Amino acid sequence: MNSIKITRALLSVSDKTGLIDLANALHRHGVSLLASGGTATALRNANLPVTDVSQVTGHGEAFGGRMKTLSFEIASGILFERTRDAREAEKLGVKPIDMVISNLYPFEKTYNAGANLEALVENIDIGGPTLIRAAAKNFHAVASVTNPTQYKNIIAELDSNNGCLTGKTRTALMVEAFAHTAHYDTVISSAMDQLGGKTTRTYKMELTKTLEYGENPHQKATIWSTGNQEFPLQVIQGRELSWNNIGDLESAALAIGLISTTACVVVKHGNPCGMASGESLNGATAFARAWAGDPISAFGSVVAFNCSVDKKTVEFLAFGHPNTTERKFVDVIVAPHYTNEALEYLARSKKMRVVVWKMEEIIPATQRRMIGSFLLEQDSDTELATKWENATPNAMPDTLKGTAEFGIQAVRAIKSNAIAIALQNKDGSYQLTGMGSGQPNRVNSSKLAIEKTLELLSRECGKNTDEYKWALENSVVVSDAFFPFADSIELYAEAGLKWIVQPGGSIRDSEVVAKATELGLGMTLTGTRHFRH
Amino acid sequence: MNSIKITRALLSVSDKTGLIDLANALHRHGVSLLASGGTATALRNANLPVTDVSQVTGHGEAFGGRMKTLSFEIASGILFERTRDAREAEKLGVKPIDMVISNLYPFEKTYNAGANLEALVENIDIGGPTLIRAAAKNFHAVASVTNPTQYKNIIAELDSNNGCLTGKTRTALMVEAFAHTAHYDTVISSAMDQLGGKTTRTYKMELTKTLEYGENPHQKATIWSTGNQEFPLQVIQGRELSWNNIGDLESAALAIGLISTTACVVVKHGNPCGMASGESLNGATAFARAWAGDPISAFGSVVAFNCSVDKKTVEFLAFGHPNTTERKFVDVIVAPHYTNEALEYLARSKKMRVVVWKMEEIIPATQRRMIGSFLLEQDSDTELATKWENATPNAMPDTLKGTAEFGIQAVRAIKSNAIAIALQNKDGSYQLTGMGSGQPNRVNSSKLAIEKTLELLSRECGKNTDEYKWALENSVVVSDAFFPFADSIELYAEAGLKWIVQPGGSIRDSEVVAKATELGLGMTLTGTRHFRH
Repeated sequence: MNSIKITRALLSVSDKTGLIDLANALHRHGVSLLASGGTATALRNANLPVTDVSQVTGHGEAFGGRMKTLSFEIASGILFERTRDAREAEKLGVKPIDMVISNLYPFEKTYNAGANLEALVENIDIGGPTLIRAAAKNFHAVASVTNPTQYKNIIAELDSNNGCLTGKTRTALMVEAFAHTAHYDTVISSAMDQLGGKTTRTYKMELTKTLEYGENPHQKATIWSTGNQEFPLQVIQGRELSWNNIGDLESAALAIGLISTTACVVVKHGNPCGMASGESLNGATAFARAWAGDPISAFGSVVAFNCSVDKKTVEFLAFGHPNTTERKFVDVIVAPHYTNEALEYLARSKKMRVVVWKMEEIIPATQRRMIGSFLLEQDSDTELATKWENATPNAMPDTLKGTAEFGIQAVRAIKSNAIAIALQNKDGSYQLTGMGSGQPNRVNSSKLAIEKTLELLSRECGKNTDEYKWALENSVVVSDAFFPFADSIELYAEAGLKWIVQPGGSIRDSEVVAKATELGLGMTLTGTRHFRH
Repeated sequence: MNSIKITRALLSVSDKTGLIDLANALHRHGVSLLASGGTATALRNANLPVTDVSQVTGHGEAFGGRMKTLSFEIASGILFERTRDAREAEKLGVKPIDMVISNLYPFEKTYNAGANLEALVENIDIGGPTLIRAAAKNFHAVASVTNPTQYKNIIAELDSNNGCLTGKTRTALMVEAFAHTAHYDTVISSAMDQLGGKTTRTYKMELTKTLEYGENPHQKATIWSTGNQEFPLQVIQGRELSWNNIGDLESAALAIGLISTTACVVVKHGNPCGMASGESLNGATAFARAWAGDPISAFGSVVAFNCSVDKKTVEFLAFGHPNTTERKFVDVIVAPHYTNEALEYLARSKKMRVVVWKMEEIIPATQRRMIGSFLLEQDSDTELATKWENATPNAMPDTLKGTAEFGIQAVRAIKSNAIAIALQNKDGSYQLTGMGSGQPNRVNSSKLAIEKTLELLSRECGKNTDEYKWALENSVVVSDAFFPFADSIELYAEAGLKWIVQPGGSIRDSEVVAKATELGLGMTLTGTRHFRH
């Protein structure tokens, strides 16, 4: 498409930002300015020569402003096909309009401000979309300018291109013009749907990434965004994130996203299998403690931090350690920030993905999932507990409440049935010592969590030492939902665990509490379930 | 809003379906008909009196049809405010138009047919949307008719209401009109985005249900649809489905959705914990076999069928059985159809949700999930295996291939790390005898699956009987992904299991295969991973 020389422009804008700058540039390049109503006044006030639209249409503004530009003369000037219809235009006295600068009555703003129907209806622009759409349709010959943010580049192009606009620019403007009118009518349509008793919303999604594959290599996969946002996971080293990495990072954000102190979580197959947090922790210790939760599964995992990562922290990976069993490999490391020294160290393992995340954007206030072509929305699970009710004579001491809360943070992110066992170390930090996940049966999750905890404590304290016993007695078992039977309680007692925190709510609560009482355990009810499937 | 008497209608349609019927009705009620181009011709051919739009505008059709109705006169006739602007209209000689019947150039059809840019641009309607939007804006006085499907009701209302249309009808038409123009420009915008190098798509979602709550009681939840579809899960007895029910039903559809014979699956916490299928099965036997997979977890589960459910099938629930341990309770039963006798039986437990599903609509060809406000799309996981490669000297006999395939169907629906153990019974049907799910560590999933299988076989065959040994030797272990270590293989051998099917692809495949060989097991590689997180 050729460049075209702009000779005559129609200006009719609701938002007058930048208008005079653009009009001055047009005037400087000898463009005749046509304008209506308030736009014409604004141009005159800036001492620019203006022809009133009414001089072209033969009609003044009419019907309280409802009629300004809508006319055979203006529409024809924009729309006629410059080659095919040239003689017809001349015969009809229609002169070309090469540029339309228009933006619309602020319907969306009025709507969001909660205006009544009458005000809404007055803010439905009829003339504006007609001008914009006509100019966009005829983009081979006309520029359709719809947004003050476009003015700067247009002025620059007119200045550098002798008052012409390229076909490329007109095409880009056309694309934006139809996006603009589509969005405008979409918002009107949603507002009017509400009037008709329907609640509707429109999502315009733009293809932003094609992934190598989906959950499995034979599944093609893509990522779509609303087009105005940056993806909250930015890869700064290594291959693109895989579908499963992204899912693991969602679990990671769920696990540590609400924790305000330093925290680290190790995620494998969507489940946190190690986690640590605390005021007293530096990144390196948090990493080591999280890793200890399941040092076998942690290989090839996703490791996430809510704090800046320094060299000392990543040195825990022990790249090139003479003892090869000390060396660790993780698939993805993610943090909000890294020191340069940490990045230099991580660069030694190019296979490892290093990612910067905006953790808080991954779990927004509203979570969405799709089943078939239906969209399911829910509030995020951010409420930890609605009560702390001691259900047994043996009441959990207040000093263990922090441990219980840490356990709830973890259990929220573990797939149901979920059990988390948490411990506050002597330095004040918290650690996930065991977890049971994804079982159809709660007792199996209990078994798995107990097994992991006993493994960790044996490894770290030596079996049956005083330290071991202290740790068991200060551990808190957290269940994501009520116990349907008392069987799990027996397993905890047998293992030497003392404190159980669960929402309650089963028809067999009394049986479960009685069992805990009988075995001398303490059971606290929180009233808040944390299923995650 | 008052009813209005229709006195003058403007007709300008691209799709002429039903046009003459509507025009005849209007004529019958004394309405003057204004029309342009092809619409005017069609009306004249039906012997209806028509005034050409050009008589009102003072201009003929111009510029190859680009200009037909766009004019001060027509737009004013639609738009002027009937009370405030009445005198001004009279002074300007503008006569009211009370009804606009317009539908648009078929841009979407042209686009979907793969037309070139020139054809696309010619199919961007400018005059039509202006008429429709103007009429919709002034809906207090004007009816905006945009779709032939609306004609029948309009004719009926004119006939029963002495040529008048109510405010309610005009409001409904206005809502549809803005939906129509919004959709039209959305499709144009997407097409033009493509031209600008972007791939975009717009979803208009309508709120269709508010759930009691989301994944947990403190999470509010809603379901949104594209508005043109019926939700594929229809509750015919009991409370509305919960968020977690819907998730379980997705797992159920994934498990049995590709099976062409009779099949039943029991789902708990998103994981199939029992499943059966086969030519030889009736619903009742399929139910009993699926239940046997984990008879404890099956309480309170979701049970799904791909076949019509009869009375004999639901009698397995044993409501009111004298032996209370025989009685079963499930949260949801779902099937494509029920016999009346089955529904009568199910009505005895009003707490049980009875659901009819369109199973195939729950797992569409493209699966979607949302992370934050980003949409992730992937092909569904429908490919079972890309090869059947015997990796060990002991080759799995062809007679076990059906069992392996059934195991793959199941493992696809189990959360990773997933292990399924499958058996073909002597009647030819297949059964899931054990499964391990949701573990960060594959060896734990192996343990869990083995434990379940040995429990089931002990219960059904008696421990270490010939029948027990036959069943173990004919069982097939299916892993959703490769074994990272040989540890699981040892556990299978120890349990007496013989046949292992897995995709392969680990750097330690040779070590894993060597272990299977050493222990006399058969290992088959499929090349196809089935992660589900």
